[in-house]
Amino acid sequence: MQYRIDSASDILGRTPGTLRELLDGLGEEWLRATEGPGTFSPFDVVGHLIDGEETDWIPRARIILAPDPNPAFEPYDRFRHRARNAGRTLASLLEEFARLRAANLDLLRSWHLTEAQLDLPGEHPALGRVTLRQLLAAWVVHDLGHLAQVSRVLAKQYRGEIGPWVPYLPVVTDHPAPRS
Amino acid sequence: MQYRIDSASDILGRTPGTLRELLDGLGEEWLRATEGPGTFSPFDVVGHLIDGEETDWIPRARIILAPDPNPAFEPYDRFRHRARNAGRTLASLLEEFARLRAANLDLLRSWHLTEAQLDLPGEHPALGRVTLRQLLAAWVVHDLGHLAQVSRVLAKQYRGEIGPWVPYLPVVTDHPAPRS
Repeated sequence: MQYRIDSASDILGRTPGTLRELLDGLGEEWLRATEGPGTFSPFDVVGHLIDGEETDWIPRARIILAPDPNPAFEPYDRFRHRARNAGRTLASLLEEFARLRAANLDLLRSWHLTEAQLDLPGEHPALGRVTLRQLLAAWVVHDLGHLAQVSRVLAKQYRGEIGPWVPYLPVVTDHPAPRS
Repeated sequence: MQYRIDSASDILGRTPGTLRELLDGLGEEWLRATEGPGTFSPFDVVGHLIDGEETDWIPRARIILAPDPNPAFEPYDRFRHRARNAGRTLASLLEEFARLRAANLDLLRSWHLTEAQLDLPGEHPALGRVTLRQLLAAWVVHDLGHLAQVSRVLAKQYRGEIGPWVPYLPVVTDHPAPRS
């Protein structure tokens, strides 16, 4: 499928509501569950998505679109949310994520990007040259990957409770050493 | 985490709303996308979850709880939904799934199952002896596995659009030969 701003924005606009339905009001034993040391809980994922709104996707798109001869991205801190959100409730993070995401999508649409602009390059600190189109498509895939991660983290908590079903339910054995 | 009916039912009760937020009104190019021949689209997954409500989890729990000396489960048809839902809209399937799920959770709670009942056995056609507790825990994991699948199927549609981000976004390379 080819990247299209309207179709991609439809997916991006759904993530806050999807996570609210899945997580808001769920018990802490689910919200703070992980896949092991150093991996993200559902609570962490919402914080990480907020970090993306504030420091990754749109800020990097601005760098690409700015009239600057050096379109180098700032490095991204995958653990910024840990200190930022200590003491916060999930409900307040979900509300904040929804507000930030809506504002960023409004901004993206307001740019009325052309195909030529989507081909403009940025410089990723590890990946090298990327285009604005690749950055904006990665934003969508990143959301969906973390939604899959939240589902998987929740599912894994019952791995010891499903007896012989383990090989029939591969979500409980996926990503034994997952990336955050 | 140990299986608990109230905590498990909280997850099960969220699946219809989560899928509605993620999918209702989304374009057909997303809803009918798959991971390749023989794999489920998001539309297929909703139909498969309906099949589970009608023919799998609660019907098998009834077999375990019935005063029958042979608690053998009926085989489950993973492709029942294909003929059943030809011509249906996703919106109508989402509504049907929500209604069936709510009724099944009401029924489950009405049974006021004891720990001794949760240890009762059934006979799975392929897996052999399973307990009611394992069946009910598998119901939760099955939901979450399919939610992860829907997210993954959607994400994979942009695999060709994210350029050098592929190794950073492993959701697009997970399950190259997925089970449905």
